[in-house]
Amino acid sequence: MPSLPGFRDFYPADCALRNTVFAAWRSTAQRYGFVEYDGPPLEELELYTKKSGEEIVGQLYHFVDKGERAVAMRSEMTPTLARMVAAQHRDYKKPIKWFSIPQVFRYERMQRGRLREHYQFNCDLIGEASLEADVELIALCIDTLRAFGLNEKDFVIRLSDRQFWVDFLKSKQVPEEKWYEVFQAIDKSERQPREKTTELLGALAEEVLNILEHGAASERLDIVENGLKARGLGDYVKRDFTVVRGLAYYTGVVFEAFDRSGEFRAIAGGGRYDNLLNNLGGVDLPALGFGMGDVVLTELLKQKGLLKPSTASIQAFVVIPDEAFRAEAAGVLQTLREAGIAADMPLSPAKMGKQFQSAEERGATHAIVVDAEIKNGKVAVKTLADRKQDVVELASLVAVLRS
Amino acid sequence: MPSLPGFRDFYPADCALRNTVFAAWRSTAQRYGFVEYDGPPLEELELYTKKSGEEIVGQLYHFVDKGERAVAMRSEMTPTLARMVAAQHRDYKKPIKWFSIPQVFRYERMQRGRLREHYQFNCDLIGEASLEADVELIALCIDTLRAFGLNEKDFVIRLSDRQFWVDFLKSKQVPEEKWYEVFQAIDKSERQPREKTTELLGALAEEVLNILEHGAASERLDIVENGLKARGLGDYVKRDFTVVRGLAYYTGVVFEAFDRSGEFRAIAGGGRYDNLLNNLGGVDLPALGFGMGDVVLTELLKQKGLLKPSTASIQAFVVIPDEAFRAEAAGVLQTLREAGIAADMPLSPAKMGKQFQSAEERGATHAIVVDAEIKNGKVAVKTLADRKQDVVELASLVAVLRS
Repeated sequence: MPSLPGFRDFYPADCALRNTVFAAWRSTAQRYGFVEYDGPPLEELELYTKKSGEEIVGQLYHFVDKGERAVAMRSEMTPTLARMVAAQHRDYKKPIKWFSIPQVFRYERMQRGRLREHYQFNCDLIGEASLEADVELIALCIDTLRAFGLNEKDFVIRLSDRQFWVDFLKSKQVPEEKWYEVFQAIDKSERQPREKTTELLGALAEEVLNILEHGAASERLDIVENGLKARGLGDYVKRDFTVVRGLAYYTGVVFEAFDRSGEFRAIAGGGRYDNLLNNLGGVDLPALGFGMGDVVLTELLKQKGLLKPSTASIQAFVVIPDEAFRAEAAGVLQTLREAGIAADMPLSPAKMGKQFQSAEERGATHAIVVDAEIKNGKVAVKTLADRKQDVVELASLVAVLRS
Repeated sequence: MPSLPGFRDFYPADCALRNTVFAAWRSTAQRYGFVEYDGPPLEELELYTKKSGEEIVGQLYHFVDKGERAVAMRSEMTPTLARMVAAQHRDYKKPIKWFSIPQVFRYERMQRGRLREHYQFNCDLIGEASLEADVELIALCIDTLRAFGLNEKDFVIRLSDRQFWVDFLKSKQVPEEKWYEVFQAIDKSERQPREKTTELLGALAEEVLNILEHGAASERLDIVENGLKARGLGDYVKRDFTVVRGLAYYTGVVFEAFDRSGEFRAIAGGGRYDNLLNNLGGVDLPALGFGMGDVVLTELLKQKGLLKPSTASIQAFVVIPDEAFRAEAAGVLQTLREAGIAADMPLSPAKMGKQFQSAEERGATHAIVVDAEIKNGKVAVKTLADRKQDVVELASLVAVLRS
């Protein structure tokens, strides 16, 4: 019986890679003064429909629980964040800088290799209207990718201004219910023939295409770009008005991270959503955030050779040449582990050669041989790389292994 | 709208405590040479009924997905482990030493404070029949609790021998379908009046009660106890034949960890289950494991004062006395963060006093004041504990903060 289609098993090598990604996410967010939160992977269905409308239900893992509640496995973190912030925002100084690494679930029609779950690094900054907050959030997105060894040749942040487009549509008297269609046409303009985009945009086509090709003035983007330059991160961004982020709730600067080669889907995306917390939780706080999934990122890092599996599970292996000294060997093992050294020993009798082989297979750097010399307080320490052997006092064993 | 009943929100302070627990679990398992794996939080329903029978369905979060599959949110890790091991055990040297920290879900009838999810540290050792494996696993359970600062006065491992009881019941010709009832009576004997236990045990009562009170010979327990003594962990265990672990699949030594005061439910429990992998996955490998939940453990650690929330989210706060130097301040901030120092600055203009207050509220040890001196390559570093201030060269700022 395999796992469900679209769900991953994490065998140790894959789990180690996953944890490497998590660790870099976590440490970068913490360097930026963001603190971690988490919420339940199961929520009331209404939390999601309230944000995204009834259409979202078709993509959710939802059911009625034994208490007759309509519930859904979380498909994104923002609704949970809005719920939590609404409940306790008075207890927290602004700006609130929070991150989370939830696993999220969507029932997508299965395509080859398409997953129904992934982990998503979510960073949100709440209660700060200044564009310095946008700079801070985009810098965090950039430095998160840099933490993996990626540089400005590997990826770029496409920067855009959703508010610019809103102002543009208002100036053209386009009714609000038509905006989504226009945003869709702009979003797809890169991947569609020009005639198709022209057709979709109708009377707006000429002017919109001109902006997409030649850009437009945006004081907001000037400020954000200058802020990133002050941090030495100017080379990581370029303006791109085709980025609108389909979701209706963005209100200001928006951005997406892409690999420069254009091989992969977006690595991350986000922006400002100043009205969303109010709509979802009734709390009027400006906010912005981004999400970065583990799947595209991991593919990119593997392609660049920046994510290498570690095969070592221990540092030291205690070798027992004679079962008569098993109890003493167990004592040595315990000493190593209590000193914080990852160590192991054979759990059943085995030939010396087999034991040394185990040590090497497990990635140990040292084998500790416990034989009759233990009665004199001594063990033999063999360096597995060069097969050199030293006899050392038990009292200095930990120091020898640490050096 | 709150979270669903029985599901926890982890606001930053709680999330930090949770992560402290995870970190200690992870590092102890790694010291023992265990490697981490993980599986999906959603599995086929059949995976659980195969192990626990149809009765388990009443306790599961289960539903039919959009692909007409009967699925369930994982209620325990062992079925996933069995599935994963069955699929790939040939690729791994034995013994397999794996751990995981899954969140698991049960629809329990709500009682005050009773949760419907928790995190469970699962450690399993597969492919080793020797009792040394039992010693290794129990030692890991003990050292995991010691890693939190708990000692032999705080908790005890109650050690028992399920195989002893099986042999006993066989010698009394008790039919196998009656065993579960007897195990239940033994399990409850501590909490029930003696007459009740006597009644439940019938003809076996006198002999069983005698064993419960005075113990019995068990070579298996002798070996395990001696093995733990060799590791200096003898004081952490005591024999207790009332421990049988209700679950039908245990086959050898079983154990449960309790706080010595007897205030809490079991902290951890496990044992040998040599037939389970064969029954579930068709792979005949001896195995043993234990589980430790986060809820009881966290309550105990809080009561003992061993789990203290950290309120510091940054080490350094960059103070901007004059907005004219914001760009330079951002450059200093970036330098600190790139050196791995958690640092922050105000995102909008604020008075000096307010900025220093933010620095203190965030737990910073140092405030870095960036003013006109930055033109000479200098910043002021204020130690917040004693309010001492030094002017330092920008080039040595990181070194100063690290010292």
